[in-house]
Amino acid sequence: MDAEKTHDAVDLSHHLSDLAKARKMSPLKGLQKYMGREHMIAFAGGLPSPDYFPFAAVGGDALVADSFALAPPPPPSPSPSPSPLAWLWRLLGSAPRAERTARIAVPKAPRAGDGGLNLATALQYGPATGMPALQAFVQAFSARVFRPAHAGFATLVHTGNTDGWSRCVMTLCNPGDTIIAEEWTYPSALASAGPVGVGVLPVAMDGEGMRADSLRELLEGWDVSRGRRPHVMYTVPVGQNPCGATMQLARKKQIYDICVEFDVVIVEDDPYFFLQVDEYVPKADRKAAPEASAQDEVSHFIDSLAPSYLRVDYQGRVIRLDTFSKTIAPGVRLGWFTCNPMFAERLERQGETSTQSPCGLGQALVTKLLSTWKYEGYIRWLRGLRMQYQLRRDLFVDLLAEEFELVQAPGTRAQGAWHGRAVYTAYPKAPAPARGRALLSFGEKAGGGAVRKPLFSFVPPAAGMFVWVKLHFAGLARRRGGGDEDDGEETTQEMRLWTALAEAGVLTAPGWFFAADQEDAPTDPDVEGHMRMSFSSAEPEDMRKGVAIFAKTLKEFFRE
Amino acid sequence: MDAEKTHDAVDLSHHLSDLAKARKMSPLKGLQKYMGREHMIAFAGGLPSPDYFPFAAVGGDALVADSFALAPPPPPSPSPSPSPLAWLWRLLGSAPRAERTARIAVPKAPRAGDGGLNLATALQYGPATGMPALQAFVQAFSARVFRPAHAGFATLVHTGNTDGWSRCVMTLCNPGDTIIAEEWTYPSALASAGPVGVGVLPVAMDGEGMRADSLRELLEGWDVSRGRRPHVMYTVPVGQNPCGATMQLARKKQIYDICVEFDVVIVEDDPYFFLQVDEYVPKADRKAAPEASAQDEVSHFIDSLAPSYLRVDYQGRVIRLDTFSKTIAPGVRLGWFTCNPMFAERLERQGETSTQSPCGLGQALVTKLLSTWKYEGYIRWLRGLRMQYQLRRDLFVDLLAEEFELVQAPGTRAQGAWHGRAVYTAYPKAPAPARGRALLSFGEKAGGGAVRKPLFSFVPPAAGMFVWVKLHFAGLARRRGGGDEDDGEETTQEMRLWTALAEAGVLTAPGWFFAADQEDAPTDPDVEGHMRMSFSSAEPEDMRKGVAIFAKTLKEFFRE
Repeated sequence: MDAEKTHDAVDLSHHLSDLAKARKMSPLKGLQKYMGREHMIAFAGGLPSPDYFPFAAVGGDALVADSFALAPPPPPSPSPSPSPLAWLWRLLGSAPRAERTARIAVPKAPRAGDGGLNLATALQYGPATGMPALQAFVQAFSARVFRPAHAGFATLVHTGNTDGWSRCVMTLCNPGDTIIAEEWTYPSALASAGPVGVGVLPVAMDGEGMRADSLRELLEGWDVSRGRRPHVMYTVPVGQNPCGATMQLARKKQIYDICVEFDVVIVEDDPYFFLQVDEYVPKADRKAAPEASAQDEVSHFIDSLAPSYLRVDYQGRVIRLDTFSKTIAPGVRLGWFTCNPMFAERLERQGETSTQSPCGLGQALVTKLLSTWKYEGYIRWLRGLRMQYQLRRDLFVDLLAEEFELVQAPGTRAQGAWHGRAVYTAYPKAPAPARGRALLSFGEKAGGGAVRKPLFSFVPPAAGMFVWVKLHFAGLARRRGGGDEDDGEETTQEMRLWTALAEAGVLTAPGWFFAADQEDAPTDPDVEGHMRMSFSSAEPEDMRKGVAIFAKTLKEFFRE
Repeated sequence: MDAEKTHDAVDLSHHLSDLAKARKMSPLKGLQKYMGREHMIAFAGGLPSPDYFPFAAVGGDALVADSFALAPPPPPSPSPSPSPLAWLWRLLGSAPRAERTARIAVPKAPRAGDGGLNLATALQYGPATGMPALQAFVQAFSARVFRPAHAGFATLVHTGNTDGWSRCVMTLCNPGDTIIAEEWTYPSALASAGPVGVGVLPVAMDGEGMRADSLRELLEGWDVSRGRRPHVMYTVPVGQNPCGATMQLARKKQIYDICVEFDVVIVEDDPYFFLQVDEYVPKADRKAAPEASAQDEVSHFIDSLAPSYLRVDYQGRVIRLDTFSKTIAPGVRLGWFTCNPMFAERLERQGETSTQSPCGLGQALVTKLLSTWKYEGYIRWLRGLRMQYQLRRDLFVDLLAEEFELVQAPGTRAQGAWHGRAVYTAYPKAPAPARGRALLSFGEKAGGGAVRKPLFSFVPPAAGMFVWVKLHFAGLARRRGGGDEDDGEETTQEMRLWTALAEAGVLTAPGWFFAADQEDAPTDPDVEGHMRMSFSSAEPEDMRKGVAIFAKTLKEFFRE
């Protein structure tokens, strides 16, 4: 990459959709020279007086930035209350700690130097770029954490990555265009594109996510009779949804260079960036509790993360989507774009005709929280969250290891989406002899001895919230049992198993839901199926129960 | 209207745009039968645990519902603080009152019967229909206040009427369609439609807003060679932006019947519905302070308002847009649709691929506020706000009366947008003889005596936030003075005056900005111009200064 090159050298305006080109700046914007002047008397706008805003102040009890820090332990609270995380500390053999909170408040009246962080401003009509104090925070945050190669980058808030991606589609794509995506991808992303007449072209994956060779093949071999060559890529490069793959810098550089060569804009949807965790270590080999490591230092933590595409984006052809959904809460509906100023300006115009600015109560409370924590505190919060997800991932895989016999195979043998990763294959456990039962007949070949057949495989993810389970249906007879066939519709093994799990009380996400190409699934449904299993929200006791039900149901399903 | 007729009798699905038809329900929605079951263990979604939401509780100091009630006076606060409305009470000769607030709080933990009003729910991913407790409030509110003729109506939240209207355009219009609007209209509404290739057809107005005869003429005389006959109307029927007109039930019924005849869907954008005020009474004839009247009782207040189009909508062809922007605060970015369930379902699908649910912090705080006030309290709040806007409107017109000589003419003489309304025409005031100056030469005809020429006319609005001022430029020489002609671009009298006002320190909104047809202005710019002047936000002292500057600038401008 060449950080000396600037955006001005590359004109990307031909990527704008007809819709985006047609969006006009508000004509009154041209008259802004007066609006910024002091002592102007405003009879122009339709703004209510802040006197009529019924909130005199808002605030809350906010968790301290070190709430999930493992070390050093916080001083005991004067009046400890049971922590919602007590279960985790018990699990780790530590004493439960009180939840520590600090009170934050945003008053109505403006005060000098408050950066607009008052309700008179936050509850008024606001700019589509976000509250100035929030805008300043995310601009500095993107600069420090993602270190974009393109120095002239801009930031702009949105109401979450679904809104962010939807605005990218409207801003970059005309009906009839196609976008590039991983062969397994986030269904909601396709739901934004499909209705506006934008199709998707899947690219094969390996253990790091999108494959560079498959991407080149797709673009080089493009037949113009199929229409315009794809000029927009949608990608989830970290903790990929659903596969869990994380792409390192070298691969990102390869893919970026191909996108330069074929003039493709990369939309990087990166909700799990801060949930990058250590590789899974089987329980027996693991230390009892995670310890603070050098990696947990603020700067080392950031350096330990696979960098954003922005890091290699010397041309400004990356639009990065960040969201507070996984780091603060989904309900705040708040996130931001980091991209070149030309795209940012068009995305701002689109924001003006939809949601305008995000909710001022949400912006004010989140901004107050962040300005209380400050940059360093927010990074410590993220570092703590990351460790929580590592503990959850470990617990989930540990529970699978209790219920199944897990055999680890080197990644070089793995094919497809797992090439290069250490794959765990699950076999039914031999029943304990104490139970007085003979070896069961799972996977026994008709004419052979007791050959155990694999039930499913997975790679313990090193980021994100999901375990992507590949089910081995080969040899399993079709259409036995279940009631769903009565309607004459063909039911896949995957959906039969999904239904059996749901009937038994466990909800998973079926694999077909994530196929980029819904017409032509990437794998033979009689041979292979998938489940996306999330470890992000179940309480540990439920997680244990759920994995036990999963094991029991699978054993019954494969015994049939 | 015939309330017996039901929506089922009328199929309106042919109004859906290609985009709206193509939006699919999430395929996982079909599997919802399991999701609603108790004791399901969820490995399906990508939801963070509420343990990781950093807000343990949020809340605020909320003004009491009677904050702006004129009677009975509230008991004195134990520790009175200066009210931000002190100026108004001084103005009214009453003693300033302390701002009374009540503390509201939303905890994280769910509790039985809280209607989902907890942060564990509000900060999680939520439905595009809104938080259940808010959804229940707006559904009941629409039923009680608007009393839709179509009993099967649905409600659905949005993030403000800009988002609401933008979603209507996407849901109802294909590129190449045209919408119907008042000849003067809200520019932001056109900014949503234009870029997606949707044009606008202006309909002439009178003092009640859109004229039924002009609408019929437009639709009856439609030449199909111009494309599809317009099938969507955008209208602001109360406190019309910018003209301030308010349409009563009889006219709405006329227009609705024409829309039935020509199969037009009516999108009713009604932000100023609760800001309907009494007719302006000149200061000399007015009582010193408004008194509580029967109309101020909750039920009488609602009955006193010009009803919504919903009241006559027996077919379900009205999509009503309500917003909390003018009644709570613009920054909450929250409002709702009231419409038939078929449109509601499509609008919900669109919400799912953009902002999803509105911000949970905003929804939780607004819902907590409303559930604290309850329906009756919110109506009292609205009644108080209405009186505030009446006081502001009165002050603004009083100030104009101090600076100009206002002559009232009966509405039967008024033409165009003011037909039927009592029009005030402003003349320069004869200077006080004490100043020792002769009658000035304003408008003196070259060969005649001192004939004062009218400077501008207006109708004191009976709703909303705006005075729409018609400027009388006839006879005024063009292009004298000012520097804007230097660039060779022609400057209208309207913009010359706008600029002179801005240079003098007063911002208004120029009339051309509101022309539905930007190519072909409704009036001759050499004869007539317009300004929209808002009385909604300036403090009274600023209002006084602003009107004085307006008067001085106008006198200079017309003297040239």
